[in-house]
Amino acid sequence: MLTLYDFMGSGNGYKVRLLLAQLGVPYRLVECDILKGETHTPAFLAKNPNGRIPTLQIDETTHLAESGAILWYLAEGTAFAPADQLARAQTLQWMFFEQYSHEPYIAVVRFWRHFLTKLSPLQELDLPERLKKGYAALDVMEQHLASRPFFVGGHYGLADIALYGYTHVAHEGDFDLGRYPHIKAWLARVASQPSHVSIDHKI
Amino acid sequence: MLTLYDFMGSGNGYKVRLLLAQLGVPYRLVECDILKGETHTPAFLAKNPNGRIPTLQIDETTHLAESGAILWYLAEGTAFAPADQLARAQTLQWMFFEQYSHEPYIAVVRFWRHFLTKLSPLQELDLPERLKKGYAALDVMEQHLASRPFFVGGHYGLADIALYGYTHVAHEGDFDLGRYPHIKAWLARVASQPSHVSIDHKI
Repeated sequence: MLTLYDFMGSGNGYKVRLLLAQLGVPYRLVECDILKGETHTPAFLAKNPNGRIPTLQIDETTHLAESGAILWYLAEGTAFAPADQLARAQTLQWMFFEQYSHEPYIAVVRFWRHFLTKLSPLQELDLPERLKKGYAALDVMEQHLASRPFFVGGHYGLADIALYGYTHVAHEGDFDLGRYPHIKAWLARVASQPSHVSIDHKI
Repeated sequence: MLTLYDFMGSGNGYKVRLLLAQLGVPYRLVECDILKGETHTPAFLAKNPNGRIPTLQIDETTHLAESGAILWYLAEGTAFAPADQLARAQTLQWMFFEQYSHEPYIAVVRFWRHFLTKLSPLQELDLPERLKKGYAALDVMEQHLASRPFFVGGHYGLADIALYGYTHVAHEGDFDLGRYPHIKAWLARVASQPSHVSIDHKI
């Protein structure tokens, strides 16, 4: 059976938990408290030398890191991954967009405001820029969704799961989604998919 | 024919140019000076609303953004992309690692030191943390390469191209690779691959 090392508050981990639920794949969940350094112990670093959750254990000696890679591994050959080459690349385009232009701003600001009690001087100085870039990512999403129900190919799939992870909790970083009607409608469409689970749902 | 919108100094763009050269795929290169805002014009934003190079134009109306997605699109079905599911996911693991844990530190510090004339107060304050995280990424790579010639599957492929892009110019951000013998040997192995081209090579 697959084992998922994860932290319940993580949107990156939630993407994997959501896909596993929708695929109906059983797994064992091992919670790691990132706030207590539990992903930087020697035992954890032997599983993922980069010290991050989610990390998926596939067999006795094989571990896979990076939410996007785990999603790809689990979804290949299912309805959540596109069957044609261009759509696969477009799915990866949005998944890389999420990790590079969205998560470092929307997820990081949420982490600072939702999980930390006090910001460092660097974080305080950096906050306005992170907010600005987070809204820039939301602008790109809003424009794309203005004429499409989902991100790739007209139906729900990996790109939606990857972007839903932190967009649906953006308000916990005080991002105001009020000006994004297309994103809000898409969030509702994603949440109404079969076998959807919430970020705090445990198996 | 494919058209690549790119900036010659970009390691993200170079990854795509290197793969195109090694695949022997002809393309038209359109240079965009990111230092002059040429990726934020209305004409460019119509191609890529996120305003970034590299952007690949596939046909009259189809554009693909994000270096990792472009690499995947071009490499599928070739010797540069793995044939089995786990190796594909491991390749994506390293490509996401590069974009999330490597590029924002090693490439950004290089950009600041190599392309800008003066750092902002935020950049000055942020620099030590970026250097620290860049070295942390190099540490992860060094450990992995200690027992392997290439990142995935024992031979050269997409993961190596993705990580080579900015690692081979890390010294332009004043990163010292002297303490990384396995990375240095791997850089030499990558540079000796058939049809290798340098970052400043133009078609």
